[in-house]
Amino acid sequence: MRHEFRKEMSLLEDTLAMLAKQAATAMERAAASLKDANLALAESVIDADHQIDFLEQNVDEMAVSLLARQAPVAGDLRTVVSAMRLAATLERMGDLARHVAYIARGRFPQTAAEGPTYELLISMADEAASVGKMVAKLVETQDLSLAREIEENDEILDNFHRRSFEIVLDENHPLTRQEVVDVVLLGRFLERYGDHAVSVARRMVFLVTGLNTEHESVPGTEEEMLG
Amino acid sequence: MRHEFRKEMSLLEDTLAMLAKQAATAMERAAASLKDANLALAESVIDADHQIDFLEQNVDEMAVSLLARQAPVAGDLRTVVSAMRLAATLERMGDLARHVAYIARGRFPQTAAEGPTYELLISMADEAASVGKMVAKLVETQDLSLAREIEENDEILDNFHRRSFEIVLDENHPLTRQEVVDVVLLGRFLERYGDHAVSVARRMVFLVTGLNTEHESVPGTEEEMLG
Repeated sequence: MRHEFRKEMSLLEDTLAMLAKQAATAMERAAASLKDANLALAESVIDADHQIDFLEQNVDEMAVSLLARQAPVAGDLRTVVSAMRLAATLERMGDLARHVAYIARGRFPQTAAEGPTYELLISMADEAASVGKMVAKLVETQDLSLAREIEENDEILDNFHRRSFEIVLDENHPLTRQEVVDVVLLGRFLERYGDHAVSVARRMVFLVTGLNTEHESVPGTEEEMLG
Repeated sequence: MRHEFRKEMSLLEDTLAMLAKQAATAMERAAASLKDANLALAESVIDADHQIDFLEQNVDEMAVSLLARQAPVAGDLRTVVSAMRLAATLERMGDLARHVAYIARGRFPQTAAEGPTYELLISMADEAASVGKMVAKLVETQDLSLAREIEENDEILDNFHRRSFEIVLDENHPLTRQEVVDVVLLGRFLERYGDHAVSVARRMVFLVTGLNTEHESVPGTEEEMLG
């Protein structure tokens, strides 16, 4: 029974790590599809999203089954509850990568913008992909130095997001309406991807240490930029 | 012990209902602040958001404590797990209402748009507020006819969202850059609020019946409008 329980806990953690890896791959490919107007790559992100959803569902079902049959306590309970929350956040990161891929696909054979606006969007998408990789490694290794790094790096995406607002709000900066919409939405999707990464980082700290900072607000850029 | 358990379960459900009510009130006020460029009302939504966060945290802590001490099974386990997920979604709905309030506050003493664009945004915000009220009533009463209604009504917000895209993508429709940004983001926030409402509706169906449709995708408008 005890052996069976540890095997199930280990499978839960492995499935979560696989989910994190796929959410990272999704953003890596979405960023590349945006950069090179690569239709096939964009399609591959969109098609692969159901696998991410399936893995989330797996984590949820394993977690509820463990709660029902094994009534885990202490660190094991923390792991099971955290796994459910992490899975929901990672699934959302996959969705955001898919949204980025939709834009890449929708503008094909063009890129979503040109010149400095294009450069900014690509830098931002690359940064999100890099954060996604850190998230995947953190979930797999539980190395909390990565959690700190993710939290500290969030400022990079926030700065790109600020810059994207400056560009679109500048009436002298020539942009089509479609470009304005794309910059606003891509900025939002990529910044949200980063916020979710911070949320994963905090949840991993809680999972490993029991120290709860999950409910501290992730510093978003909404107040500053909308209000 | 059994009596104590039922009391705790009941407190969990009451706290969740209170959270749903506050997420509804937040959108109701945000919509009104957008309509009348009411700064005080917008501020009240922004200030009240920490109460929503606090209630979510309460639900989470109660749920984990129940899992740890009482090891609930069957319907009770379903209620506890659902409560955690519902709380996360309701908290997010509160955030989206706060984002709407940021825009209302940021444009004061003006409104966020004018003419038909303004009319559209107000109709959309009113619809979101109406959906929020249904969600609050559903969580309180567990009346599943409301879940069906929420799911069916989601098309209304999606249609407003489509219309907002048509307006901003029409180069002949005179809008400032700020107006374009506001319409894109308000459209996104309000449509997401509706998607979360559908997610709450499905989770309530699961909570009450054990029938799981939670993992069916909520029909978003992203693919159609971005890709």
